[in-house]
Amino acid sequence: MGALSLPSVPMKPGADLFHDPRPFDLELGGQLPELDIAYETWGTLSPAGDNAILVCPAFSGHSHLASSERDPSPGWWNGMVGPGRAFDPEESFILCPALLGGSYGTTGPTSIDPRTGKAYRGHFPVITVRDIVNVHIRLLNHLGIDRLVGAVGGSLGGMEIAELLVSHPGRAARCVTISGTAATRPYTVSIRHIARRAIMLDPEYKGGFYEGDGPVNGLRLAREVGTLFYRSREEFNERFPWEPIHEPSLAGTTFDVQSYLGYQGRKIVGVFDANSYLTMSMAMDLHDVWRGFENREAALANVDAETLVIGVEEDRLIPVDEQREIHDVLVEAGKESTWESISSRIGHDAFLVETDLMSEMVGGFLKGQ
Amino acid sequence: MGALSLPSVPMKPGADLFHDPRPFDLELGGQLPELDIAYETWGTLSPAGDNAILVCPAFSGHSHLASSERDPSPGWWNGMVGPGRAFDPEESFILCPALLGGSYGTTGPTSIDPRTGKAYRGHFPVITVRDIVNVHIRLLNHLGIDRLVGAVGGSLGGMEIAELLVSHPGRAARCVTISGTAATRPYTVSIRHIARRAIMLDPEYKGGFYEGDGPVNGLRLAREVGTLFYRSREEFNERFPWEPIHEPSLAGTTFDVQSYLGYQGRKIVGVFDANSYLTMSMAMDLHDVWRGFENREAALANVDAETLVIGVEEDRLIPVDEQREIHDVLVEAGKESTWESISSRIGHDAFLVETDLMSEMVGGFLKGQ
Repeated sequence: MGALSLPSVPMKPGADLFHDPRPFDLELGGQLPELDIAYETWGTLSPAGDNAILVCPAFSGHSHLASSERDPSPGWWNGMVGPGRAFDPEESFILCPALLGGSYGTTGPTSIDPRTGKAYRGHFPVITVRDIVNVHIRLLNHLGIDRLVGAVGGSLGGMEIAELLVSHPGRAARCVTISGTAATRPYTVSIRHIARRAIMLDPEYKGGFYEGDGPVNGLRLAREVGTLFYRSREEFNERFPWEPIHEPSLAGTTFDVQSYLGYQGRKIVGVFDANSYLTMSMAMDLHDVWRGFENREAALANVDAETLVIGVEEDRLIPVDEQREIHDVLVEAGKESTWESISSRIGHDAFLVETDLMSEMVGGFLKGQ
Repeated sequence: MGALSLPSVPMKPGADLFHDPRPFDLELGGQLPELDIAYETWGTLSPAGDNAILVCPAFSGHSHLASSERDPSPGWWNGMVGPGRAFDPEESFILCPALLGGSYGTTGPTSIDPRTGKAYRGHFPVITVRDIVNVHIRLLNHLGIDRLVGAVGGSLGGMEIAELLVSHPGRAARCVTISGTAATRPYTVSIRHIARRAIMLDPEYKGGFYEGDGPVNGLRLAREVGTLFYRSREEFNERFPWEPIHEPSLAGTTFDVQSYLGYQGRKIVGVFDANSYLTMSMAMDLHDVWRGFENREAALANVDAETLVIGVEEDRLIPVDEQREIHDVLVEAGKESTWESISSRIGHDAFLVETDLMSEMVGGFLKGQ
C-alpha cells in the first residue's frame, strides 16, 4: 500500500492533546498501542478537582462543544455553555473530549498506528461505547479528576453516560443521559447497518483504504438514512410541500424533501471520515451496558450517582420506551433516578435543537434544583 | 450503445398477453407508442361480463396472484383465491394484470421501444399510478368488462384502487384499498428516495443501461431499506437476538438481524429489474389521486362505489392516519365507505401475511356481508 492522502478532518483548533503512550486494551479483544486524546475545556479546574463537568459528544464526535477564546466558532451544543446556562464556565470546569474512533484528534482510523508507521484506516479495530468511555477515564485520570460533579450526553453521548454510570460507578455525582439507551435493539441495528452498507457500496470505499474523503456518495447516503431517523415524520410532512417542485425525474430532484436530504448528506462530507463513521456506528450497535455483568442488579450494585434520564416521545431511532429503560432499572435497584419525557417534532435530535429547554432541565438538575 | 443483455425477469408462465398497438399518453407528458399488457385470470367471465374482480398487484408488480393450472407455483396472494376464499373462481372471474413499468410482460423498461428497436432501459419515462391504472382500464375494455363487481389491492395495489375509484368512477361496484394512501407524503418520499439512491449509487447501475441484472448490490440495499418499513420495530426486537451472533466486524454479519436483511435483499435479485424498481418507486412517490381536480369534492363527485379501507396500525411506511384519509374524505363527500384498522406486528406487509383475516374481511365485503 502506498502513501494515501488522509481525509481532511482535523483536530479542532481549540483542542488540547493528551498523548498517553500506554497500551489500551479493547473490550472485545485487541489493543491500541497508544492513545491520543483531544479535548477542549471551558472554565478553571478547582485545586481540589471538584468542579468538573464532562460533556460526552454525540456521533459527530468532536470536542468543540461551544465557542471559546481559542475557537470562537459555534460548537455542537453552543447554547448549553455560558453564564446562566447549564454549563457555566464561571463556576465549573467543563470538559469535552473528542471520541475514540473519530477523526478529531483522539485516536481513530486516521491516526498513525505506531506499529506500522501508517494510518490505521480500514485496519482500525472494532470498538465499543465502553472503550470510548474508558478513554474518557484515562483523560479524567490525567487531569486529576476523581469525581465529576456532572456528566452529560445526548444520543451516543447518552450511551456514554449510561456506560460511565454502570462501568465506573462513583466517578460522577450526577449523570444526565438524553435520547440514549442502555442497550441497542435489533431494529436500531438495522438502521445503522443500512447506513454502513451505503458507505461500503460506494466503489470509492475500497475496504477502508480510500484516497482523501473517499466514499463521499456513500457517506452522503448514510447521512440521508440517518436523517430519516434523527428527525420525525411529522416534521417532514409539515415542513415540505407534498407536490413536486421540479419536473419529475429519477436522477434529479423532484420533491423539495429530496433537496433537504441532499443538503444533509452534503454537510457530512469533509467533516466525517468514512472509517470513523463505520467504526462509531458499529460501536453504537454493540452498545450494551449490561455486557459482562452477571445480571442487572450486579451491574448497578455500586452506582451512587443521581441520574436524570431524558427521552423524546417522537424519537424514531431510539424509541422513548427504550430510552426510559435505564431509569426503570435504576429505580428498581433502589437508585436515585428521575425520568423526564419531552415532546418535540424534531425527534431524536431534539436535544441539539431545543437548547433553551435542555439548558434549563440539565442546569437545574446539576445544581440539585 | 451495443446490444445489452436484458435482466432475467420474464412474463409469468400463466399469463396471457394483450398487445395494444395504440399510443398511450402518460399523465405527466410523453407517450408510449404501444402497450403490452400481461395478465392472468381465474374462473370464467360471465357472458354479461358482470362477475369480474380486479386484483391490483403491489410493488412486485406481477400477474401471478395465485396458483393455477398453467402455473401451479404459489402466487403473491395465494391464500386469497379458491373456494371459500375472498376470490372464488367458481363464482367470479378474477383478473390480475402485471403492472406498467414492471418487468413481468406489461410494457416497462425491459420492453422494446418500437421507435428504436431497442429496450427502453434507462430511457423509460416517468410514470404515475394513474398511468398504471389507465393501463388496467385498457385491459378491462379489451376484455369487455364495463363494471367490475370488485377491485382490490394492497400497498401500491391500494393506491391503484384509490386512483381507480377517483379517476374512473363507475368502473367498480366495490373497492377495497389496503395499506394504501390517496396521496404520498414527504416522509414516505424520503424513504423511497433513499432506496432509489442506493440503486443509483451502485457502479453497475450505469444510468440504467446495465448488463444483465445490473446493480444487484444497490437493489439489495434498496430492498433492505424497504424491509425496515415493510415490517415493524416490535417484530424485529422480538424476533432477533440482541447480542452479536458472530465475532463483530464491519464487513461481516455481527447481528442475526443483519442476516435477515441480507436474505431479504438477496431475494430481490433476479425477480426485480432495477429500472422497474426505480420507475415504480417514483410512481408511488408521485401518487396523488387529487392531482388535476379542482378540489376533493369535484374529484369524488361521480364516485358511486362502496369502499372498504383497511389500514394497519403498525404500518411504518404509510401510517394508519394517512391510510384512513381516503375513507374520511369519502364519508365527508357523502359516499359509502367503511374503515377497518387491524393490528399486526408485521406492519405494512400484513395484508400479504395475514391472508386468513384478509380473505374474510375482503370476501365478506365483496359479498355485501
